[in-house]
This record gives sequence, structure tokens and C-alpha cells, in this order.
Amino acid sequence: MMYNQVERRQSWLDMALLGARFMEKHGRDADGNWYFSITREGKPLVQPYNIFSDCFACMAFAELYKATGEAKHKEIALQAYQNIQARSANPKGMYNKLYPGTRPLKSFSLPMILSNLTLILEEVIGKDEVDKVVRPLIHEVMDVFYQKDSGLILEHVAPDGSFVDCFEGRLINPGHTNEAMWFMMDLAERFNDPELQKKCVEVLIHTTEYGWDDAYGGIFYFKDIKGYPPQQLEWDQKLWWVHLETLIALVKGYKQTGDSRCKDWFLKIHDYTWSKFPDPEYPEWYGYLNRQGEPLLTLKGGKWKGCFHVPRGLYQLWKAL
Amino acid sequence: MMYNQVERRQSWLDMALLGARFMEKHGRDADGNWYFSITREGKPLVQPYNIFSDCFACMAFAELYKATGEAKHKEIALQAYQNIQARSANPKGMYNKLYPGTRPLKSFSLPMILSNLTLILEEVIGKDEVDKVVRPLIHEVMDVFYQKDSGLILEHVAPDGSFVDCFEGRLINPGHTNEAMWFMMDLAERFNDPELQKKCVEVLIHTTEYGWDDAYGGIFYFKDIKGYPPQQLEWDQKLWWVHLETLIALVKGYKQTGDSRCKDWFLKIHDYTWSKFPDPEYPEWYGYLNRQGEPLLTLKGGKWKGCFHVPRGLYQLWKAL
Repeated sequence: MMYNQVERRQSWLDMALLGARFMEKHGRDADGNWYFSITREGKPLVQPYNIFSDCFACMAFAELYKATGEAKHKEIALQAYQNIQARSANPKGMYNKLYPGTRPLKSFSLPMILSNLTLILEEVIGKDEVDKVVRPLIHEVMDVFYQKDSGLILEHVAPDGSFVDCFEGRLINPGHTNEAMWFMMDLAERFNDPELQKKCVEVLIHTTEYGWDDAYGGIFYFKDIKGYPPQQLEWDQKLWWVHLETLIALVKGYKQTGDSRCKDWFLKIHDYTWSKFPDPEYPEWYGYLNRQGEPLLTLKGGKWKGCFHVPRGLYQLWKAL
Repeated sequence: MMYNQVERRQSWLDMALLGARFMEKHGRDADGNWYFSITREGKPLVQPYNIFSDCFACMAFAELYKATGEAKHKEIALQAYQNIQARSANPKGMYNKLYPGTRPLKSFSLPMILSNLTLILEEVIGKDEVDKVVRPLIHEVMDVFYQKDSGLILEHVAPDGSFVDCFEGRLINPGHTNEAMWFMMDLAERFNDPELQKKCVEVLIHTTEYGWDDAYGGIFYFKDIKGYPPQQLEWDQKLWWVHLETLIALVKGYKQTGDSRCKDWFLKIHDYTWSKFPDPEYPEWYGYLNRQGEPLLTLKGGKWKGCFHVPRGLYQLWKAL
């Protein structure tokens, strides 16, 4: 991505190819599904139960194809994309522990990530396919998961879009919403849709106000839409990606609409983020702060914090600013 | 349990029977495996992926059988026990997401809970079966999961008992260890084994010192044996059951050995526990405190905090004191 969009520096492409060759050889099962984790040597550790592994692999090989033009890279991206489409009705497949039919829920994650992935795939699947796929995704995000009454986006709704009064149904993830808002803003720009741009800014500002911790600063990880305690023990923590994705959405929202609330919130969250997340001694960021804003885990990477949100976020912020 | 061991009060037995009839009708799948969760109306919500549901159901029906003498209650307990035995090699069955063979691990939870469950089942499975089953469990807990070098018990080891240097392999759960220590003390009493009693007290005191938070008091939920950040975002929280189970072990350890360190730690953790966990207005306990000792979630019950550790703990403490 850096090679394609920042500078055609050969050493960056070489690095990407090292990773790609390893992943190509070790990353997938016989059906082309991407393992959730593998060992350092490349042996599978955790089965491909999580469709988001496929989404991230798909993005990576689509981006690599832009750089190399190699058919093999396009094919790998396309295979992942087709698997994602095929698995989208039941992403966890045989690893789904929910009893079918009792309390069916659909999850915001999938339309959200697809609305970004699809744009990255344009050179692999073509402009017409992108246009065809993203329209219903915008509808899912902005009409189905978005709740008119509260102005917030739910993480899970019933298949018919209705509210389900249980822990999962009441869950709000402000960082997730704000990340989705910049995906929507990118689509609004593509379709030249100022109404959608304005709506995204409304959702973004409202969610940021709702998610902000007045006592210690920072945006909460989870909240319950009815104000009940959420199920997640980590609900009050401050996560790196939540703040980065919110910053991206705020600066894009400001660029698109000039709404001064975007600028005000951007400056406030910028100050919080840059004073709390980067390690002053080594430049990588801590991922997980406690409610008070202190590092809860001193690790810089792990199962969920990879080399993804920080570089993407810095790139997006730089370009938009 | 209260009817059997505290007072033969009919209203308590009636309550238990109400619960038992509901569970008997709605709790199991066609093979008698216990669902992880069901709705208020009794429809299955989450598949029987978790063998600990079967363990808790087994305990409940074994205890009920002691009160009623009804063959049906004995049969339900026995069916659960047989299923647990059959599933013990791969407790999660088809829901196990680990790729077979790459990094096999066995988990401390199973020998630990079985060493307590088996005693409760004595009237269902008979004294000889209990004696036969618990000997190897004591070995697993005190020789295999216990690490001589550090004096601590690991949550996961390789099938041959060796240390595995990964997040799961480095994990220490001090509350889990301490709970297991009073299960072992009960067995040590059964077998009149003062050596085992002494060893349990050593592990208990060492683990309590290791798990204690010098800055804010209370026992951490998780630590990494090499001092690295653990994977669990909730690692620094203070949980109700950790403190209750530690108190039980300390008072039993004091009773069995007279070791004054047990008394000193008991008083210290008693003060922490009773000043932090019970809601002063309504008598049930909060389950989850943040590192500082304030309620992190104001709920009194949830998916993991049922009506189990508090009543069992108060009963055990009362009897032992």
C-alpha cells in the first residue's frame, strides 16, 4: 500500500513480497480459507473460524496485485473474496456456537468491513461489481444498523433489522461506528452524495460525544444503549484503533462538510491520542490503556494488534490533513 | 445443598425442585449434553460447547438426589458424569478451534473441577469409584501442572507435562490455583495425608503472595509466569470468586496445619473482600472490580456470575471457621 500510494521504493515491495510468499504457502487450508493464526514456522494453530482473517488477507493481496500486476496475487485476492461472499450468511460456519433459530442476530462487522474491502478490491473485481455491491452495504450501515431514535449504530440487530433486548442487541462500540463512518464518507465521495456526507458527520459527532469519557478522557470501548452494564469486562478501556479511526473520520468529515464540530473534536482527540498511545522511547504505540489512560498491557503487538491500524491511520490522516 | 447440609427446610427443597424441573425439561440436547445457555422460556441459545455446564449440572442433580432419593435425579447426575468422562479428551468437541497437533495443550480446569465434582458425586458413583478417580487427579494437579522451579501452577501444559512458551502456556490464574488447593485439602483430609496438606499450604501461600497487588490490594485475575503482559485485557481486575476461593483455602489450610501465614493472609483478604465486594445497600456481591477496587460492572449476575461461588463460599467459610 505504501509502495502504491506513497513512493515506489523497492525495499518496501521486497518486504511485502517476503510476507506474501510466507502467507501464500502457509496461510490457507485446502479450501483457501485463511487460518486465524499460524506458528512462526508456518504451521496452522487456529482454524479458519474467523472470516475477518480472509478479509485482511484479501486486502493485502489486492494491494500487492496493484504493485506487481502478477496474476497469482490477483487470484489469491479473488479466491478470498469469493470465500467471504460464500460464508457471509454464517461467517463462523461449523464453529458457530449459537443454537440456530432461537435468537438470530446479524452483526454490523460484516457490512462494515466489506464497505471498505470492496473499494480496495476495485482493480481485482472491477468498477461495476464494486458499485453493485456497495449500495446495499450503505443501506445496511446507515438504515438498518443505524437507529433513528438514539442516533447510534447497534452492533447486532435481528435479521429484519429490529432491536433485540439482550447483551448483544444492546451493544454499542463507538470506535466501530466511527470507523464505519469514514468508510461511508469514502463511498459518499465516490457517489458524490452530500446528503450521505452530512448524515455520516451527524452519526460521528453524536457517537463521539456518547462514547467520550468525561471523567478521564478517551473513548470507551463498549457501552450498553440502555445504560446497563455491558458484558465485556474490557468495556471502559481505551484502545488505540478506536482513537485512530475516530480521528480519520473527523478529519474526513471536516474536509467534506466543513462542520466545525469535526475540527473541535479532532483537536481534542488528537491531543489525547498523541499524549497517551505512543511509547515515548520506542515509536510504536501501546494498544490497550486502562480507563485512566495508562498502559494496561505494555505489548506493542499481539493476536489483535497487528501492523494495521497505526500505519493505515497515519497514512489516512496525513493525506486528509 | 443447603437443605442437605444446613437445615431440612422444605421451602429450600421446593425452590431447588422448581429449578431442577425446568433444567430437566430444557437444559439438555438429545445426547444429554448441557446447553451453555437457554432463554428465560427454556429455548436453547448456545450449544453445549462447554463441558463445565455439564459439571455444574452434575453437581446440582447429585446434590438433589441426596435430598430426594429419587432415581430420576441420580440418573441425570450419572448421565452428565458419563458424558464428562467421554468428552474429557476433547472437551469442546466440534467447537474446538485449535488445529490438531501443532501445539497441543492440556488445561488445568478439568482435573481441577473433577477433583471437587467427584467428591460431591460419592452417593451417585460410590466410594470405590471416587477413590479410583481422584488419585490420578491429585497427581495431575500437584505434580503435572504444579511447577517445582517457580512453585506455581500453570493453566496449560503440553500433554507430557512440559512447559510451552506461549501466551496460554505462560498463564497463571491465582484464584484458580487457590480454589484447587482447597479441593486438594479436602482430598488430603479424606486420605489422611498430612504431607499433601503441607504442600497445599505452600502452594497457596506462594500463589497468594505472587497474585497480590501491592499497589491497590486484591488478587490479580491473570499473570504471566515470565512477567510478560498476558493476553487477557481483564488481567488486572479483582474478581469476587478469586477472593472467596482464596479465603476458603486459607481457612482450611489453617485448620489443617495451623500455619500462621494462613491466618495472616486470611485476615488481610477478608478485610479486602468484605469492604469491596458486597453492595452495602443490597446484600448480593459485585462480581467485577477494577484494579483500584471499584465496581467495574454494577451487575450482580451474568453469564459467568451465577448463584454459585457466593453461597458455596459463605457456607464453606462458616463451617471451617
